[in-house]
Amino acid sequence: MTAALSRSEAWSLLALSSTCLGIFVNTFQGDGAPLIVSLAFSGLAYSVTYALIRWLGPTFIGAGLKGKDMSKAIKKEIPETMGAVAASIYLLILIAFIPFPFYKDIVAATSGGGNRDVVVQAAEVETGRFLHRFPHSKLSAYLSALLTLHTTTLLGITDDILDLRWRHKVLIPALASLPLLLVYYVDFGVTSIVIPRFLLPYIPNTSITNSESGLIHLGPLYYVYMAALSIFAPNSINILAGINGIEVGQSIVVAVLLMLNSSLYLIPFPGNPILGSSPPPRAYPHPATDSHLFTLYLLLPFLGVSIALYTHNRYPARVFVGDTYCYFAGMVFAVVGILGHFSKTLLLLLIPQIINFLYSSPQLFKLIPCPRHRLPKYNARTNLLEPSVTEYPAERPPSNFQTMTLTALAKMHLLEIQINPETNNIRSSTNFTILNLWLVWFGPMREDRLALGLLSMQTAFGLLGLFVRHRMALWIFSLDNRGFPGWGEGGIV
Amino acid sequence: MTAALSRSEAWSLLALSSTCLGIFVNTFQGDGAPLIVSLAFSGLAYSVTYALIRWLGPTFIGAGLKGKDMSKAIKKEIPETMGAVAASIYLLILIAFIPFPFYKDIVAATSGGGNRDVVVQAAEVETGRFLHRFPHSKLSAYLSALLTLHTTTLLGITDDILDLRWRHKVLIPALASLPLLLVYYVDFGVTSIVIPRFLLPYIPNTSITNSESGLIHLGPLYYVYMAALSIFAPNSINILAGINGIEVGQSIVVAVLLMLNSSLYLIPFPGNPILGSSPPPRAYPHPATDSHLFTLYLLLPFLGVSIALYTHNRYPARVFVGDTYCYFAGMVFAVVGILGHFSKTLLLLLIPQIINFLYSSPQLFKLIPCPRHRLPKYNARTNLLEPSVTEYPAERPPSNFQTMTLTALAKMHLLEIQINPETNNIRSSTNFTILNLWLVWFGPMREDRLALGLLSMQTAFGLLGLFVRHRMALWIFSLDNRGFPGWGEGGIV
Repeated sequence: MTAALSRSEAWSLLALSSTCLGIFVNTFQGDGAPLIVSLAFSGLAYSVTYALIRWLGPTFIGAGLKGKDMSKAIKKEIPETMGAVAASIYLLILIAFIPFPFYKDIVAATSGGGNRDVVVQAAEVETGRFLHRFPHSKLSAYLSALLTLHTTTLLGITDDILDLRWRHKVLIPALASLPLLLVYYVDFGVTSIVIPRFLLPYIPNTSITNSESGLIHLGPLYYVYMAALSIFAPNSINILAGINGIEVGQSIVVAVLLMLNSSLYLIPFPGNPILGSSPPPRAYPHPATDSHLFTLYLLLPFLGVSIALYTHNRYPARVFVGDTYCYFAGMVFAVVGILGHFSKTLLLLLIPQIINFLYSSPQLFKLIPCPRHRLPKYNARTNLLEPSVTEYPAERPPSNFQTMTLTALAKMHLLEIQINPETNNIRSSTNFTILNLWLVWFGPMREDRLALGLLSMQTAFGLLGLFVRHRMALWIFSLDNRGFPGWGEGGIV
Repeated sequence: MTAALSRSEAWSLLALSSTCLGIFVNTFQGDGAPLIVSLAFSGLAYSVTYALIRWLGPTFIGAGLKGKDMSKAIKKEIPETMGAVAASIYLLILIAFIPFPFYKDIVAATSGGGNRDVVVQAAEVETGRFLHRFPHSKLSAYLSALLTLHTTTLLGITDDILDLRWRHKVLIPALASLPLLLVYYVDFGVTSIVIPRFLLPYIPNTSITNSESGLIHLGPLYYVYMAALSIFAPNSINILAGINGIEVGQSIVVAVLLMLNSSLYLIPFPGNPILGSSPPPRAYPHPATDSHLFTLYLLLPFLGVSIALYTHNRYPARVFVGDTYCYFAGMVFAVVGILGHFSKTLLLLLIPQIINFLYSSPQLFKLIPCPRHRLPKYNARTNLLEPSVTEYPAERPPSNFQTMTLTALAKMHLLEIQINPETNNIRSSTNFTILNLWLVWFGPMREDRLALGLLSMQTAFGLLGLFVRHRMALWIFSLDNRGFPGWGEGGIV
C-alpha cells in the first residue's frame, strides 16, 4: 500500500469535505440543526480517517505496529492497530460536536446556572423543547459516554501495544464502563425494567416489583446488568474476528440497524392506538426522542470512521484494525444501548455474536483445548479458507467427556471431527467459532465470500430481530414503547 | 531494575493500601467526606502506580518503549513512557471518585432530574450546601476536565510511540483542551477578568468594560486566552526537561504550591476586612470554596501518582517519564487554573517555566540554530554535567545579527560563547535552556545537584509568587478575592 492518496481519492475526499463544511457553515443560519451538523461532521470524519489511515501507514510500521496477513499467498506486513486512528478521530469529532445539541437549551434551562441574558418564556420551557435540543442533564450523560469510549480506546491501545493476557483483556471493558455507570448512578438512578407479560401472574406485588405497572426494580442488580453488557459487547466483537473486514463489517451492520431502530422513534405519532382513550390533540414527538437522537449523534460519526476503516480493511486487507477497534465498536453499542435505554434491542441485534460466544464457550473456558489462534486455515494451493482444527495427539487423546461432547456436536452438524483409524480416538476437531462452522456447513470458500456470508447472516438476523421487537413486543410485554405515549424514556429498557 | 518489588516495598505498599482502604470504608459511616475519600484514593493511586511501574518495566522494554540514559557512565536501556502508567491510574482514580462529591447534592439539587424520593428542605437548598458537596453543574465541569486529561494522555502516548514532529506536537494540547473549552462555553460562559487598578483610569466605560466593577468582558478573546494557557502549560513543562527527575519534580512543586493556595480558601473567614460595612453574622465558607475543593480533588491524586513516578525517575533514573507525563502534568495545571478561575495565580507559579520558554525562544523559533537535543552534556571523566553547546562550523559562521545577539547575551552572563581565535568568529554557544544557564552560572555539577537546584529555585519563586498574590493583590487590583465575600467564583480570574 502506498502512503499517498491517488489523485481521484484526494479529489473525492476534498469534494466530500468541502460539501460537509458547506453544510456545516449553513447550519449557523437560522436555528442550527444538530442532526445536520452531525451528518456533516460524519462526512468530515470519514475523509480525515481515510486520509490519516493512508498517511500514517508507514509511521505505524516504523513504530512496530504491524502484522502479517496469514490468509494470503504472499504474507506481507501491513500496519496494525489502525482502529486507534478511527477511534481517535471519532472522539475528537464527538468533542467538537458538544456545543451544537447542548448550547441553546442549556442556557435556557439553567436559569442562574449560566450568566447569559436569555429570557426564557415559561411556555417555551414547558412545551417548546425543540426536536434536536437536549436538556442539561444529558450533557453529563454525553460526557460520560465520551469518557467511557476514551478509556476503552486508551486501554485498547495498551492491549495492542503490550499484548496483554486474556484475564487482563476481559477487565478492559469493565474498567472502561466505570464512568458511564457512575454518572448513571449519580445522574439518573433509574433501575427498573419491564417484566415480560407471561411472567406477570407469577410475580407477587412486593417492594421491588409492581405487577400492575409491569415493572421490576432491580436496584444494584441493574448495575451488574449494565456492567455485564459493557463487558459482553466489546468482547463478543473481539472473538468474532480473524478474517479481513469481519470486525468492521459486523460493526457497520449493527450500527446501521441501531440507527434504523432509532429513526423509528423520531417520526411524530398521533397518540396511542392500543390504549385508545382520550387521544391527544396533536401529533407530538415520542417521549424517548431525546434518547434516540442521542443514539444517532453517537452512531453517525461512528459510521463515518468505520466505513473509512472498512475500505482499507476489507479483502484484501491493506491495514489491520487491532483489538482497539473491536473494544471501541462494542463499547459504542453498549453506551448507546444503556443511555438510550434499549439494551434488550441491542442484544437482539447481537444475536450472531451471542451465538458465537455460546458456541465458543467450551474452548474459552478450556473444557476443550484452545489454540492461541482459531481463525480459519488458509490453503495456498486452492486460495480458499478451510476450517482450522485443534489436534489431539495420540499420546494425549481427548477425555471421555470431551469425546462425548465432540461426537454429539459432530452428529448435530455443529462440528467436524476426524477419527484416528488405529486407536479409534478423535484425532482433531474444528475450532469452535461460527467462522469455522460456516466453512463446515458450506465448504471451503474465499475469504471475502466468507465475510460476505457472515455479514449477510448478521443483517438478516438483525432485521428479523427488529421486526420481532416492534411487531411482537406486545405479545411478550404489556406494552411496546414505540406506540405508548405516556412513558418517559426512563422506565422502559 | 528488577521488576519485582522488594519485600519491604511490598509490605509498605500493602500497609499504605490497607490504611487507605480502611479510611475509605470508614467514610461510608455518617455523611461521607469527599476530601477524606480523595486522600485515601490518592494513597491507593500512589501504591498502584508504584507497583505497576515496576511490574510493567520488562513489558514496556519488550514492546520497544525504552531509551538510553545519556548522562550516565554506563548507558543502559530503561523503560520509557512510564508517565502513561501514572496518567492512566490517575484517570481511573478520578473516575472512581465521581460518586463521592456529586451523589447527594445532585439528587437534592435536580428536583425532577433524578427519580429518587429525596425531600429537599427549601432552607437546605438555599443555605445548606455542605463544604464538600458540589452543585450539579460542576459534574459537567469535572467530566470535561477528565475528558481533556484523557485526550492529552491519548495524544501524548501517540506522540511517544509515533515520535511526532514539532509542529504536530504543539497541536496536541490545543486539541486536548477542546472538551474543556467547549463545556465551559455551553456551561458557564463567564468571560470577564479583573482589570488591574492602575489601568482603571485609562479604561472608558464601554459595552465590554465597566470601570466601576473593575471588570473587563473579554468574550471570545477569553477562549483564546484559555486555549493559550492550555497550550503553554504542557509545552512549557515539556521543554524544561532532559535530566533525571526534573519533569516530575517541577510538577510536584507546582502541585504542592497550588494546593497550598487552594487550602487558603477552605478556611471559613469572618467577613470582609476592607469594605467593613455590615459584617455578616457568622463565619461562612468562601464563595470560591467549590472551585478550590475541585482543585484539591484533582491535585491530590495527581500528587499520589507523581510521587510514585518520581521515586523511579529521580537520579539515578530507573524509568523515563516520556512526553506523555509532561503534557499530562501541564494539562492538569491548566485545567485546575481554568476551572478554578485562578489562571493568573497559576502563571505566577510557572515563572521558571515562563523564563525558560522566553530564554529558549531564539532557538525554538530558529533565530539561532537549534540541535535536536539541548540537554546538558555528560562528562564521563568527571561524572558531572556541563552546558551543552551549539557549534558554528568555520565554513558557516553565525550571521551578523546572530553574533550581535550572542555577544550581548554573553556580556549579560546569560550565555557562554567560545571564539575561534583564527577567524575571530563565534565557534560555539551554550544552548538556550535554564538548565544550561544554571551550569554556566554555578559550574559543572552532578545531575542530582542540578535537579535539586532548579527545584529549589522553582519552590522559592512559587512561594514568592503566592506571597505577592495574596499580600499585594490590593495594590494592583481593586480587590483580593481571598478577603472579599461578595464575589461568586465566576467573575474573578
